[in-house]
Amino acid sequence: MTVLQRRDFLRGLAIAGCGFDARAAAPVEDPPAAATEAAQNVTRQLAHFVVASRPGDLPEKVRKEASRTLLNWMGCAIGGSHQDAVSNAIAALTPFAGSGQASLMGRRERMDSLHAALINGISSHVLDFDDTHLKTVIHPAGPVVPAILAIAEHRTVSGQDFLHALVLGAEVECRIGNAVYPAHYDIGWHITGTTGPFGAAAAVGKLLNLSEQQMTWALGIAASQPVGLREMFGSMTKSFHPGRAAQNGLTAALLASCNFTSSEQSIEAPRGWANVLSTAHKYDEITGGLGESYEILLNTYKPFACGIVIHPTIDGCIQLRKEYNLKASEIESVALRVHPLVLELTGKKTPQTGLEGKFSVYFAAALALTQGAAGEREFSDRLVRDPGIVALRDKVSTTVDPAIGEEQVRITVTLKDGRRLEKFVEHVVGSLERPMTNEDLEAKFVGLADGVLPPAQARRVMDLCWNIETLPDAGNLAKAAVA
Amino acid sequence: MTVLQRRDFLRGLAIAGCGFDARAAAPVEDPPAAATEAAQNVTRQLAHFVVASRPGDLPEKVRKEASRTLLNWMGCAIGGSHQDAVSNAIAALTPFAGSGQASLMGRRERMDSLHAALINGISSHVLDFDDTHLKTVIHPAGPVVPAILAIAEHRTVSGQDFLHALVLGAEVECRIGNAVYPAHYDIGWHITGTTGPFGAAAAVGKLLNLSEQQMTWALGIAASQPVGLREMFGSMTKSFHPGRAAQNGLTAALLASCNFTSSEQSIEAPRGWANVLSTAHKYDEITGGLGESYEILLNTYKPFACGIVIHPTIDGCIQLRKEYNLKASEIESVALRVHPLVLELTGKKTPQTGLEGKFSVYFAAALALTQGAAGEREFSDRLVRDPGIVALRDKVSTTVDPAIGEEQVRITVTLKDGRRLEKFVEHVVGSLERPMTNEDLEAKFVGLADGVLPPAQARRVMDLCWNIETLPDAGNLAKAAVA
Repeated sequence: MTVLQRRDFLRGLAIAGCGFDARAAAPVEDPPAAATEAAQNVTRQLAHFVVASRPGDLPEKVRKEASRTLLNWMGCAIGGSHQDAVSNAIAALTPFAGSGQASLMGRRERMDSLHAALINGISSHVLDFDDTHLKTVIHPAGPVVPAILAIAEHRTVSGQDFLHALVLGAEVECRIGNAVYPAHYDIGWHITGTTGPFGAAAAVGKLLNLSEQQMTWALGIAASQPVGLREMFGSMTKSFHPGRAAQNGLTAALLASCNFTSSEQSIEAPRGWANVLSTAHKYDEITGGLGESYEILLNTYKPFACGIVIHPTIDGCIQLRKEYNLKASEIESVALRVHPLVLELTGKKTPQTGLEGKFSVYFAAALALTQGAAGEREFSDRLVRDPGIVALRDKVSTTVDPAIGEEQVRITVTLKDGRRLEKFVEHVVGSLERPMTNEDLEAKFVGLADGVLPPAQARRVMDLCWNIETLPDAGNLAKAAVA
Repeated sequence: MTVLQRRDFLRGLAIAGCGFDARAAAPVEDPPAAATEAAQNVTRQLAHFVVASRPGDLPEKVRKEASRTLLNWMGCAIGGSHQDAVSNAIAALTPFAGSGQASLMGRRERMDSLHAALINGISSHVLDFDDTHLKTVIHPAGPVVPAILAIAEHRTVSGQDFLHALVLGAEVECRIGNAVYPAHYDIGWHITGTTGPFGAAAAVGKLLNLSEQQMTWALGIAASQPVGLREMFGSMTKSFHPGRAAQNGLTAALLASCNFTSSEQSIEAPRGWANVLSTAHKYDEITGGLGESYEILLNTYKPFACGIVIHPTIDGCIQLRKEYNLKASEIESVALRVHPLVLELTGKKTPQTGLEGKFSVYFAAALALTQGAAGEREFSDRLVRDPGIVALRDKVSTTVDPAIGEEQVRITVTLKDGRRLEKFVEHVVGSLERPMTNEDLEAKFVGLADGVLPPAQARRVMDLCWNIETLPDAGNLAKAAVA
């Protein structure tokens, strides 16, 4: 035995105990006193809040925002439901899944509740079009809604309780995200997948009426199942993350409901989630003002199906088109003053496919000026090659201007008759300052559902989302959204 | 908007793109040149090795050790199969699981393949009695065997291929563990659950005949699903970790088989698994000498169902009992010279329950001297309270001696007739220097299976493990081990 082997063997001896761990039993370095104070009972305080919360506690604006989040999520899930990532996952897992329990949004197949949570989570994120809590870049609905939808088809859940659970799930994941962002994200974690299991566990746990003890365990079981490295961005595994987070949180709540035990300080313990997965953690962000503020009020929705850096350009062009009733044939040139990142990320001059079009601010401007929209449907191979749009695209020029903010653009359209039209976008649509209106969200939904659900059915799903609180059985929302 | 909100908003804008990530596209700090060199294509090299490996490549001693690993795992899974952690998990998940596909060791229920992998993984670890790769304290079989057993009941897998997959799975998880141990473990990760998904994905992927590209994806999907914080030790969630790792790896391989894509540098990328989950990573430990050495040769098995620090005492007492045909009535006193950790961790003088008995070196010595064994069966409430054992327990004294190694003990038994019997244990049984013999492993298995399977059936399961390579259908091993 070499010295190294011997050291490892001793280490092994000390550790590989039965029912206890020598090093776990040894004293752990004490965190600073202040941190200790703040860190006491974080998990339990959160569990207590979730268990004690009542639907009537939620202010009306919170409930309204939650229904907007739900409608936006549903549109994304329906719109993404036939992407390869979704179809491949269904093909791979169907032989091992049950068939009767739960609906898959936008599709005909049914699966067991746990797999449905996974698949619907993938669908809802695969277009990168879902909601964003900008403070943490968490996509709050992705892990939460699929989990509670699956439960709502398994036992009767009122729409009021459903919406309440959605708010609580978003609250839990975003608060935990606030505590560790940006250090945790910077390390390389996909924060939606790592905080998502907590959100799903809390939301499902609420619907299962877990006790405070069980809720604490549910959060602990969730803590041991973080999902997602940012390294996966650009592959199908990115959209797997919110789906798996939903499934993991659902599993955690189900296990806890049968008294499957876990740590009771899973978030704040010296070897708990926050210390292991982040170099920084502000526990006050988790426990401060619980029930006084709601993170879902900070949720935002993407108006356009492309990289967010060109959203200001699209926004401004759509406004100009509408204000001046512009036609492509009238336009002599389009000059954009943009933030430097715009050209760095979306400077492609002659895109050839719909996907490439998402990386071309030139095409995006022409698209917005001619179509008045830039949804998934508009970023098509057909429109990228449309001669009229290509001609206009080639009339778009860009100037980088460091004075232009990332959420801003200054557009000058020169018409053939000599007129110059100006538009300065200070806050892009979809920001907290200029949120998408309910009508915007409906238009986005309609675009996403196009080709998947008939228009009348899409209308019905939207109505169910808006009226979710009045439904006696929230499971009917899931059933209404199948192809 | 405050300055902070604005910064976060900008950050959000830059990140929350559609189909791309601004920061992912930005250059990442370059690692040092040497590290870069070593880190090239780590994931792909590993995938290539697994795909190219043939059963005939394995040396005989590797195959023999793998069958010992299998037999030990099976005994643990059967022995743990009726613990509360297992029963609670089955109760929680049965309503959502399929019923026909796969066997649960030691039980009558059947579940779908994915849930069976989870449950069998929990069973096999719940007694903390499974195998240990001492270099990393990984329990190699826990995540791998349940996954390949589940597949072997779903499609026909020869015993030779089954054993080959087990070796490859252990190889992959232990090599990745070697690369990040101890930093990764010290941070707080339960290394069995974090490396386990890789092992299970590789092993299952091999049985599914994945291409090199698909195997690379399988490893990537596994990388995004690490399981387990050490904070969970002492709760049921600890044994959940290897089970969930098995299920995650199985899921990863199934997805990859349907071309569900992932990163192709999931282990070594700047935002890959090793960088995100560990402060240190020795990539040569993953790629160096692949196919020349096998980690399963470093696997060890626990002979006694208690904390490993008192194993030398039990070992020495059993030897003395056997060599001198000792009877309790002959013994005047027992003096132990022990490593300091022994009293720190197992210094309980008057245990009252079987569980407490595991934390008493005094009881353990008396148990070993009277029973000649210290399995799960012996650490019972009944024997802890047995008057003869209690009388002998009270004759045991201890002296801490820093010169005694952690895997050592010096025992002096003084008999009533004045004789002094000495035993110095230099290397405890179960160490790499004094591995458990096949007979030891069988005796351990019999003890674990007692009360779960009839003796003849236990004998049959052991024979199937020893002869696994000759089985035309390895699924028969799983079917043979149900209650």
